[in-house]
Amino acid sequence: MYMLKNYAMGQWVEGTGRKADLFDAVTGEKIGETSSDGLDFKAMMHYARSVGGPKMRALTFHQRAAMLKAIAKVLMERKDDFYALSYLTGATKTDSWVDIEGGIGTFFAYSSRGRREFPNECFHVEGPTEPLSKNGTFVGRHILVPIEGVAVHINAFNFPVWGMLEKLAPALLAGVPCIVKPATAGSHLAEAVFRTIVDTGILPDGAIQLVCGSAGDMLDHLEEQDVVAFTGSAATGQKLKSGAAVVKNSVRFNMEADSLNCSILGPDAVPGTEEFDLFIKEVTREMTTKAGQKCTAIRRSIVPAGLEEDVIKALSKRLASTTIGAPTAEGVRMGPLASRAQVNAVRSAAEMIRHGAELVFGGGDFDVVGADREKGAFFAPMLMVCDNPLTRLEAHDIEAFGPVNTVMPYHSIEEAVQLARLGKGSLVGSLVTADPKVARDVILGTAAFHGRMLVLDRTSAKESTGHGSPLPQLVHGGPGRAGGGEEMGGARGVTHYMQRVALQGSPSMITAITREWTKGAEEHTDAVHPFRKTFDELEIGDTLITKSRTITLGDIEAFADLSGDTFYAHMNDDDARSNGVFEGRVAHGYFIVSAAAGLFVEPSLGPVLANYGMEKLRFTKPVYPGDTIHVRLTVKQKTAKDTPEGTIPQGVVEWDVEVMNQDNEAVAVYSILTLVRRSEPALVG
Amino acid sequence: MYMLKNYAMGQWVEGTGRKADLFDAVTGEKIGETSSDGLDFKAMMHYARSVGGPKMRALTFHQRAAMLKAIAKVLMERKDDFYALSYLTGATKTDSWVDIEGGIGTFFAYSSRGRREFPNECFHVEGPTEPLSKNGTFVGRHILVPIEGVAVHINAFNFPVWGMLEKLAPALLAGVPCIVKPATAGSHLAEAVFRTIVDTGILPDGAIQLVCGSAGDMLDHLEEQDVVAFTGSAATGQKLKSGAAVVKNSVRFNMEADSLNCSILGPDAVPGTEEFDLFIKEVTREMTTKAGQKCTAIRRSIVPAGLEEDVIKALSKRLASTTIGAPTAEGVRMGPLASRAQVNAVRSAAEMIRHGAELVFGGGDFDVVGADREKGAFFAPMLMVCDNPLTRLEAHDIEAFGPVNTVMPYHSIEEAVQLARLGKGSLVGSLVTADPKVARDVILGTAAFHGRMLVLDRTSAKESTGHGSPLPQLVHGGPGRAGGGEEMGGARGVTHYMQRVALQGSPSMITAITREWTKGAEEHTDAVHPFRKTFDELEIGDTLITKSRTITLGDIEAFADLSGDTFYAHMNDDDARSNGVFEGRVAHGYFIVSAAAGLFVEPSLGPVLANYGMEKLRFTKPVYPGDTIHVRLTVKQKTAKDTPEGTIPQGVVEWDVEVMNQDNEAVAVYSILTLVRRSEPALVG
Repeated sequence: MYMLKNYAMGQWVEGTGRKADLFDAVTGEKIGETSSDGLDFKAMMHYARSVGGPKMRALTFHQRAAMLKAIAKVLMERKDDFYALSYLTGATKTDSWVDIEGGIGTFFAYSSRGRREFPNECFHVEGPTEPLSKNGTFVGRHILVPIEGVAVHINAFNFPVWGMLEKLAPALLAGVPCIVKPATAGSHLAEAVFRTIVDTGILPDGAIQLVCGSAGDMLDHLEEQDVVAFTGSAATGQKLKSGAAVVKNSVRFNMEADSLNCSILGPDAVPGTEEFDLFIKEVTREMTTKAGQKCTAIRRSIVPAGLEEDVIKALSKRLASTTIGAPTAEGVRMGPLASRAQVNAVRSAAEMIRHGAELVFGGGDFDVVGADREKGAFFAPMLMVCDNPLTRLEAHDIEAFGPVNTVMPYHSIEEAVQLARLGKGSLVGSLVTADPKVARDVILGTAAFHGRMLVLDRTSAKESTGHGSPLPQLVHGGPGRAGGGEEMGGARGVTHYMQRVALQGSPSMITAITREWTKGAEEHTDAVHPFRKTFDELEIGDTLITKSRTITLGDIEAFADLSGDTFYAHMNDDDARSNGVFEGRVAHGYFIVSAAAGLFVEPSLGPVLANYGMEKLRFTKPVYPGDTIHVRLTVKQKTAKDTPEGTIPQGVVEWDVEVMNQDNEAVAVYSILTLVRRSEPALVG
Repeated sequence: MYMLKNYAMGQWVEGTGRKADLFDAVTGEKIGETSSDGLDFKAMMHYARSVGGPKMRALTFHQRAAMLKAIAKVLMERKDDFYALSYLTGATKTDSWVDIEGGIGTFFAYSSRGRREFPNECFHVEGPTEPLSKNGTFVGRHILVPIEGVAVHINAFNFPVWGMLEKLAPALLAGVPCIVKPATAGSHLAEAVFRTIVDTGILPDGAIQLVCGSAGDMLDHLEEQDVVAFTGSAATGQKLKSGAAVVKNSVRFNMEADSLNCSILGPDAVPGTEEFDLFIKEVTREMTTKAGQKCTAIRRSIVPAGLEEDVIKALSKRLASTTIGAPTAEGVRMGPLASRAQVNAVRSAAEMIRHGAELVFGGGDFDVVGADREKGAFFAPMLMVCDNPLTRLEAHDIEAFGPVNTVMPYHSIEEAVQLARLGKGSLVGSLVTADPKVARDVILGTAAFHGRMLVLDRTSAKESTGHGSPLPQLVHGGPGRAGGGEEMGGARGVTHYMQRVALQGSPSMITAITREWTKGAEEHTDAVHPFRKTFDELEIGDTLITKSRTITLGDIEAFADLSGDTFYAHMNDDDARSNGVFEGRVAHGYFIVSAAAGLFVEPSLGPVLANYGMEKLRFTKPVYPGDTIHVRLTVKQKTAKDTPEGTIPQGVVEWDVEVMNQDNEAVAVYSILTLVRRSEPALVG
């Protein structure tokens, strides 16, 4: 028996009062109990805000990213334990892989993005400096800071691990403490994973708490800086979203609801093509993986009129060969639903869909391997066909959260698009076609109604991650019926836990706040060349103004000769003049940046290790023979790096570069990226 | 008498039934009537979605941007008419300038951003390609498409023009049809501006509609693809936001509510400093501009303990010298409130604040110039002081939407931050200090509670746009009490009217959909060098594979000599080896990109006019003497440009460049930006 506990204010606490029972989805046997009765939600939320929040916000993105990776490694080591618990939810090994390793993968992915896409700071500077004044003494800049409340995560029953970790990863990376509320079904698995995370001791006090059982009145205690991320049914989500505290306090409510996702078979993908087979395979997989209990599963198969029979035949054949049974039994491809209650819910939803569609597969008797069909939560795939899907809307409206799918014909691309849109907003849609024109028309026609669209063809099939798989790199969530939320999507997912603030002030003030040099801010020049300073010695704003160099026609000729670039604008006065851009032979842009380096580089061995890139180069004015250039080189930003053992401790220094002519007009602006050695005495010299 | 009409389904329609009266705020006289009775809101919304939406979406961002500019020009020509109407609302000339020219400026600003930051396409590609597979046959990309519903704009009474135009600009640029619902007070001005826009004939049918009077049951007809942008009181906003249709259909609801904005006087800004004077000036201005009827006005003055008396004295002096009266009367600096009803509302809110604060200025008799004090909606400034602002929360909670301000002392930076946060979320806060350390501590301490933060000091004061001015470049909106919305903020404001969709597929499919070449997609090579093709002849994916060149030590020496860049890693084998990055003398990165140009450039006079920039250059592998490089150059993206008369018709072509070594490993990757001539026969050759 799993006697689940809650993790509240740093303690494991057993709920008092009435317990909810947990069942084995395969055998129907009771396997545990859970209760959140007696928890003081208000106090837990206060604890998160007052203890967890400050500790999390004191860390930089890179430090939080490192924590995610360290936790993910421990979880990976313990995965076998999680698989064993997962089988009790009815999940097969493949289903469990998606849930467990997919979930842990989200932690790895956010760890890596945290280090690459966020600074080694407690906040994030976003977008360019906005000039707000003529003389440049007043500028704007956006920053993102962690919200200072608690993130309440309300998860669905279908993916106890992934559902928890895909929400925790961006929230923790943002620096926001979380309270996790898993669905009761499957909470023994969520609790085990959560307990493993707590036991690592990696997260600071108050960073995470767990409520197994009812959320009680938790959402009544939401405040202005809190955020809710909800995954579950549209009905529940809408109720919570319109709760008094949510509305009154403008609490961010990110909702991801089930939706009536479709897959469209392109007109080119007739039987006999690879794409036809891919479609059949994809629909079958989406119907049977996790027994169809996925928010992203394909519910509607939109196929060219005339191909319904072929599609039904092919799908039926594959479905008929899908072995149903205990996840651990040999050959089983599809497990039970999560509970007997779900069996009843799916059956009744399917009955409602049948009012507007005809059953063409399933619905009758079926075999179950390795388990008792009547005791476990087994439900066999059902396939329907709706011949008039523009007027019979049941299959567009009613979600049977199980292995249920409706085939519907279309007569033109426009009609296929129209049918897809009748879902009123979906998490994901897919299109199987080899025709780029069809792809463009269908995708742009349906895009506004989807959070994600997959185009599948023979080229991508082998490496495709499939219709039903949300990925940390891509946005997950859809408009309308799907809840209107947005999760993950790389760095964007982190910003949902942050406040965007527009800063205004003088360049020096903006530089002081953001620690990123802003043009117009104070420049510090001293006798020491900045290339002679270590990463730690360099300061934001350290500036070198170089001596100048006059560019000659000889330079241009020599550069053309050495580079091989004899473009007419550099070589021929008349041709250069003829194009409307130049007044005569012009120096190569690449020569200007090369000569600029010649002016600003301190050549002898020193702390600068390498120049590895350049950003946003613009040639703002032509340089003609006789023009004299000089350079301003300023430390724009510093990012300390974790350097692996055995390499020289170093950091990234970004320099702002402006090349000017004799009239102090900018001729080229850009920034360069260098690696610079740190000060550690042992490694200096 | 202004008998206002509504603009519904392309017709000007007078409301039936009971009319609401419009009054001159200065004289109290009735000046007009308005009614929305009898309008079929459901039909209007359907018209917007079915007629306006498709027409708007058929245009590119650049076409829509051009429309905004053309409309703004016409409005600017007619501005004197608008000023005359504005004075009736009680707005002074300065107030009217903010409203009218500020509003028109938003159209100009979005027009310019539309051309610079969005493609000449109907949708927008966002962020980089996301690799999703090992062999690169499956990738992801995000695009933004216009939502396919209607935008309902519910505006506040204080800025009839700006309030309308700041919402219309991003929505129209996104391609979304709008229904504008101005507040009744001031609607004669909103209607006049709206009518001018309609009369230009620039916008397609169904792009905009107007409801003067009550919104009736309009929000009950909201559907999944619609969006609401609301500005007004928190109470009304919360009611509308939790409406059944909004919740059920996950309608985006962008709410911008009044808030208890604060300004903080830094501890360094003692009397006698320029910053002290700036603070006094800014608070006075924010209290009196628009008679304090701004969502962004300063309501709370947070000052160092001990300086209360100085602040009160200085503020009182300035307030006492503020002439109140008819906007058109000589010397008047502050007009009346919008209506007598507002006078009562502000008075009663001020009374409530007084429960926790002491009145130190105003509240008694006052003079009015050029108008009858009892007939017009006049209200004189009131200043209060709250000595225990950590426990008396009235001034943090209650908004008097007029010239009312409360001074409150702080004893430490932490306490100043704490007081600012007691507003529970504000649109804007400001800090007046010359101390960068104070700026950083206060801004980062309060940022999560604000949508915008201004740091004011002597450096930026002259060009500062002020505490109370939202700008199109910067985010407007704040968390919590301020409604949790976000408007403007440059390109970001446009995305609130768009759906973000993650696309997945093969690089060729993603290229076909986005019209931006994705690495791994098909490359077309033919006999004609791409530099010999015009903008119109070039196709996405056109590729040149160059011949190769072996880099010699002589090249490196010659390049060092010509550029002057003798950095040790290029010149000295031992030094190069010592830094842990290189295995010996390495070629200059700038030489590699120069030599690459030498390989891919077609030198003779042709359609390529100039190379004006480079993006995202990364040196991915060192090039050593003896290495042999070659280049792949591919057309990545094309953007047609509107070229002014007299210049050669041209477009921007972005090229994807990959420099590879003899082992086909990338040594440098980047993209370059060129101007390429179009095909117009008259100008060719």
